[in-house]
Amino acid sequence: MRHQKRIRDYGIKIGCLETGRYNAITDVEGVTVGHVTLSDQSMQTGVTAILPHTGNTFKEKLIASSHIINGFGKTMGTIQMQELGVLETPIILTNTLSIGTAADALIQYMLEQNPEIGRSTGTVNPVIGECNDMFLNDVRAQFIEKEHVFQAIHNASTEFEEGSVGAGTGMLCYSLKGGIGTASRQFQLAHGEYTIGVLVLSNFGILSDLMMNGRAIGQELKEELLRSWEEKDKGSIMIIVATDLPVSERQLNRIIKRSVAGLSRTGSIITHGSGEVIIGFSTATKIPHDNPNHCLSIPAIHEEEMDTAFRAVGEAVEESVLNSLVTATHVVGRDGNERPAFKDLIQEFNIRLA
Amino acid sequence: MRHQKRIRDYGIKIGCLETGRYNAITDVEGVTVGHVTLSDQSMQTGVTAILPHTGNTFKEKLIASSHIINGFGKTMGTIQMQELGVLETPIILTNTLSIGTAADALIQYMLEQNPEIGRSTGTVNPVIGECNDMFLNDVRAQFIEKEHVFQAIHNASTEFEEGSVGAGTGMLCYSLKGGIGTASRQFQLAHGEYTIGVLVLSNFGILSDLMMNGRAIGQELKEELLRSWEEKDKGSIMIIVATDLPVSERQLNRIIKRSVAGLSRTGSIITHGSGEVIIGFSTATKIPHDNPNHCLSIPAIHEEEMDTAFRAVGEAVEESVLNSLVTATHVVGRDGNERPAFKDLIQEFNIRLA
Amino acid sequence: MRHQKRIRDYGIKIGCLETGRYNAITDVEGVTVGHVTLSDQSMQTGVTAILPHTGNTFKEKLIASSHIINGFGKTMGTIQMQELGVLETPIILTNTLSIGTAADALIQYMLEQNPEIGRSTGTVNPVIGECNDMFLNDVRAQFIEKEHVFQAIHNASTEFEEGSVGAGTGMLCYSLKGGIGTASRQFQLAHGEYTIGVLVLSNFGILSDLMMNGRAIGQELKEELLRSWEEKDKGSIMIIVATDLPVSERQLNRIIKRSVAGLSRTGSIITHGSGEVIIGFSTATKIPHDNPNHCLSIPAIHEEEMDTAFRAVGEAVEESVLNSLVTATHVVGRDGNERPAFKDLIQEFNIRLA
Amino acid sequence: MRHQKRIRDYGIKIGCLETGRYNAITDVEGVTVGHVTLSDQSMQTGVTAILPHTGNTFKEKLIASSHIINGFGKTMGTIQMQELGVLETPIILTNTLSIGTAADALIQYMLEQNPEIGRSTGTVNPVIGECNDMFLNDVRAQFIEKEHVFQAIHNASTEFEEGSVGAGTGMLCYSLKGGIGTASRQFQLAHGEYTIGVLVLSNFGILSDLMMNGRAIGQELKEELLRSWEEKDKGSIMIIVATDLPVSERQLNRIIKRSVAGLSRTGSIITHGSGEVIIGFSTATKIPHDNPNHCLSIPAIHEEEMDTAFRAVGEAVEESVLNSLVTATHVVGRDGNERPAFKDLIQEFNIRLA
Repeated sequence: MRHQKRIRDYGIKIGCLETGRYNAITDVEGVTVGHVTLSDQSMQTGVTAILPHTGNTFKEKLIASSHIINGFGKTMGTIQMQELGVLETPIILTNTLSIGTAADALIQYMLEQNPEIGRSTGTVNPVIGECNDMFLNDVRAQFIEKEHVFQAIHNASTEFEEGSVGAGTGMLCYSLKGGIGTASRQFQLAHGEYTIGVLVLSNFGILSDLMMNGRAIGQELKEELLRSWEEKDKGSIMIIVATDLPVSERQLNRIIKRSVAGLSRTGSIITHGSGEVIIGFSTATKIPHDNPNHCLSIPAIHEEEMDTAFRAVGEAVEESVLNSLVTATHVVGRDGNERPAFKDLIQEFNIRLA
Repeated sequence: MRHQKRIRDYGIKIGCLETGRYNAITDVEGVTVGHVTLSDQSMQTGVTAILPHTGNTFKEKLIASSHIINGFGKTMGTIQMQELGVLETPIILTNTLSIGTAADALIQYMLEQNPEIGRSTGTVNPVIGECNDMFLNDVRAQFIEKEHVFQAIHNASTEFEEGSVGAGTGMLCYSLKGGIGTASRQFQLAHGEYTIGVLVLSNFGILSDLMMNGRAIGQELKEELLRSWEEKDKGSIMIIVATDLPVSERQLNRIIKRSVAGLSRTGSIITHGSGEVIIGFSTATKIPHDNPNHCLSIPAIHEEEMDTAFRAVGEAVEESVLNSLVTATHVVGRDGNERPAFKDLIQEFNIRLA
Repeated sequence: MRHQKRIRDYGIKIGCLETGRYNAITDVEGVTVGHVTLSDQSMQTGVTAILPHTGNTFKEKLIASSHIINGFGKTMGTIQMQELGVLETPIILTNTLSIGTAADALIQYMLEQNPEIGRSTGTVNPVIGECNDMFLNDVRAQFIEKEHVFQAIHNASTEFEEGSVGAGTGMLCYSLKGGIGTASRQFQLAHGEYTIGVLVLSNFGILSDLMMNGRAIGQELKEELLRSWEEKDKGSIMIIVATDLPVSERQLNRIIKRSVAGLSRTGSIITHGSGEVIIGFSTATKIPHDNPNHCLSIPAIHEEEMDTAFRAVGEAVEESVLNSLVTATHVVGRDGNERPAFKDLIQEFNIRLA
Repeated sequence: MRHQKRIRDYGIKIGCLETGRYNAITDVEGVTVGHVTLSDQSMQTGVTAILPHTGNTFKEKLIASSHIINGFGKTMGTIQMQELGVLETPIILTNTLSIGTAADALIQYMLEQNPEIGRSTGTVNPVIGECNDMFLNDVRAQFIEKEHVFQAIHNASTEFEEGSVGAGTGMLCYSLKGGIGTASRQFQLAHGEYTIGVLVLSNFGILSDLMMNGRAIGQELKEELLRSWEEKDKGSIMIIVATDLPVSERQLNRIIKRSVAGLSRTGSIITHGSGEVIIGFSTATKIPHDNPNHCLSIPAIHEEEMDTAFRAVGEAVEESVLNSLVTATHVVGRDGNERPAFKDLIQEFNIRLA
């Protein structure tokens, strides 16, 4: 979005559906994203905040669902999300060993916004996702402080950077530099036009598996590179799916489960060490925190209308992963560990993508 | 209902909520139940059909959910019910080794009702539950024929018998004769009066565990009885929950999961061999089979209103199990195997229940 | 295997791992497969039986697990499989409306093999999978009879046909003729050589989505074809995974879940109407039906060894789907409905695959 | 244990199985428990640590499983526990809004114990449970600091207090003062003697529902009390189950799911706002963090031996809840909020329990 060269700028078009205005998760009305980036020698980490709507998320909750592709991860907040079917806080992404601090900060933020929590009403369910950036970042140093979380929330905007920023600062993707990527799809149903937006924090895969729109570009790159590096995948991916489609939490769960189709088409084999967690929410209905003493009315599409949404989420996840890869920049981090940027490699080896 | 002495007729009142008119699953408007009973020497089995509404269930589906307390069972149809959140056929209960026949019969019934299945629309998802009546019934003989299923559906009515009837003909409960039991609860919310009805097919437990409203009546009976019998629990329970409460499938799932509280209060320890499966549906919303090309609107209670429903289902399950026990009659079956009726025992030993 | 031209015979090699001897599910020692094919005008259906080992599966059960990608399906037997972690019968595949008959037949088969069922021991859990072949087959006619199931079991062998055979007779894949496909992978761990074999019953997808090893061959074919046909996906896929890898049921579940990566790489977007169910078993451990009165000892790989198995299952599923497609033959069925064979099309349009 | 009057000291014996030496979770060899109690006016909260064995839990993990009765809770660590089937840290219990701090502290503790985390090996999965003590404690003040977690771990011992201590300091149970309770059961199988121990953090229920061994003592108390108080259940319960029984994670999951039977028999209807989460582990097998390059061998009981374990866990949970209630002391906390102690009430009203 912000003057970064994205996968479509290389001439690669994923799938057949149209993108939204920004081709970003923020094409879903009301969604904003903010980063804090900590990049200095062995400190290569950060925070990314996704705000699901512009109001008070605790008082007006959104229908939400999570799905676990591979549970080698520490995402917080999914138990209550599955039981109650709602999201009631922003979503915070950071490194694995900073989830405690991030949770504490998000709780504090919610307490400040909602003085009734812990007094006249119950508690709040913070939602925190993570990937492990230990290769480039000194993750044991736990650089993230509560202030960084407040700042990331404060920075939230409809336009935001991709690649080596925010929680993505120290992440790897297909053994190259990865991080934050986003994309969106729009489509028409009989009763309106709808958008599905995706944001990924990519940190998984080995180079030889990387596919771009069917092309085994990872193997090509591997042959070009004379030097090699650790090829063990210890990574993960967090996938956030936003939509304005009117859906029940069951329907939303069906939609977000299709993320794996897009992920697989980039070459992932979903390794043991790769925690892969999806969190989705719909902005179509706001569920009031307080009992209104009348029945709620939940608008929902008919099940026969699902397929376009399924196709949309697969395409948007595939493109988000590729965007995270092509926008990321070369990073040298902890102990001189480094990973090249995809965009530098294809220039170095004079590879044309389309 | 039909002139049978039920647990309340013994002076025992379970819980604090009011019952419906029949104190039966059929207190939920539109629900009917039919039995076919096969009782002749080593043939002690049958079929019970629960019809969820009076219309065409395939064309107007009901929001539904299943929950598995203990999966040692062969219930059919839950995969699709969980994925799509609907019930589209009657529910058929029978013995374990007759599920194939029951499924075949239910498919045939649905094909006759719906000529478009397998032609202009897809297939149908038959829902079959079962318990193992091998002690009293020669289950290997597979006595159930398709005609019995059609007959049970045909027999469906708002009033029906409990105890040693239908699928309950050969079942045991707490080592005594068990079978079909039912109960209901009514309650008021801000926006209306609602009913939860339960039907159980009881076939679990050992005598010494039996509790009635807190009283360890099973241990009392055990001490009275000079003879004893196999005390190994190989049984199961099927629990069907109907309601007219407007709920999403997630909310319905939360409600039916509370069945276990009532079950436990009758003394169950949920043994290994006891397949315990709950199927619930709500008549509040009809989901059209065909896409109406506009958004559906699903009425749903606020989550804060759940507790009364939770209490209701626990009470109704507890009372249903006790009703199955006190209405059952003495049966002599396969190889002269027999189990006494609870009502005969308390008369024999002159035990007053209240 | 039996003189059919498979995807490797077209020069297309999926993935990087070695295949087993037959490149089939039967490369896992002890596994056999049998078909019964009913192909005559509007009758285009059949039965496929997978026998998990050569002994008595009820007395010596295998560690097993199921995973549901999309639950729009009627597979029977998964509730108990998930609760107890074992498979105790052959697996029968057939058309959707014949599951009742198939279950009844499999129960009868198990009763004959095991006279103690329903007498001195409990019941048996039949495992039946299905896809909907209504386009080519008159599925409402329910052509399958119990005898066909017995015959398919009887026909089981280490070598078997792929394509338009057995349960695959009337199935479609990517809008072309589909059906049965199989493949396998072998790999070395520190403690031995292991095999993962896959069999699919393919019945899903639309032509324009079909990918072969990254190539959008579906779109190429669509442009060549002047005629077109219904492009609505109402299909499904059953995936059977066998292995001799020593694994717990949790580990096996992790392995079979990776099937979706291979499936996605053939182009699937996992549509609403496509019931996608995976059943896996390991032959490494036999769990005795009767309590041996000593602790069992379950061999299991270390979790760090999982990745090769994950890669293997993804590759084998991808290749199995392609094998089902390239071996299938042109079928004209119900009401003159027909679907071309992939192999005929590429010849007609002079397309080289490699 | 430590000179506190427990439910058995009142003459009430739950169930029929024998207890262990301490009738506590610490009867499982190697398990220890430590508290930090913060009790001063509006600060009524604390930390309880359960150490699963005496060695390095990260290097020697235990087979573990979690089960969610009602997911209105924020327990951390269950995603990875379910995926990998192991526990690799102590379990920390505290108040709901302190989970971030508790997680951060536990991560720091694990980093200190294991210098390879985040360097030569991956990350660690902290397990944190919580209940909401907002009625007696100023939960918004987030009194818990990392030092309290270290201290609770340091305090761990085989003997520990129950009632208003540690994480239980500010908790309520059946509208009275609740908190920490524990119990255990021992039983003989063909191959050895085994123990199941339970620890609960009780914070749920309304007075009128309280049952003790079948007696509706809650209703009796309610009638005695002239004053009344808020009867809305906003509580929760954390249940920790330890055993030395050799079991797979699937078997362990079956065992811990039976906790609900004991919970129900104390009168719980499992209300909407009551997050009820169970975490179980078995000390019978240690799973090495590092790949030993040979197959593991997991000892496991035969499924037919499960029933005694099922009975044991139900009894131990029931007794643990009652122990938490009868050992708790009267607490006056935030804004003068207070709840009576059960033991004071029965003395005041001269009620004999047995």
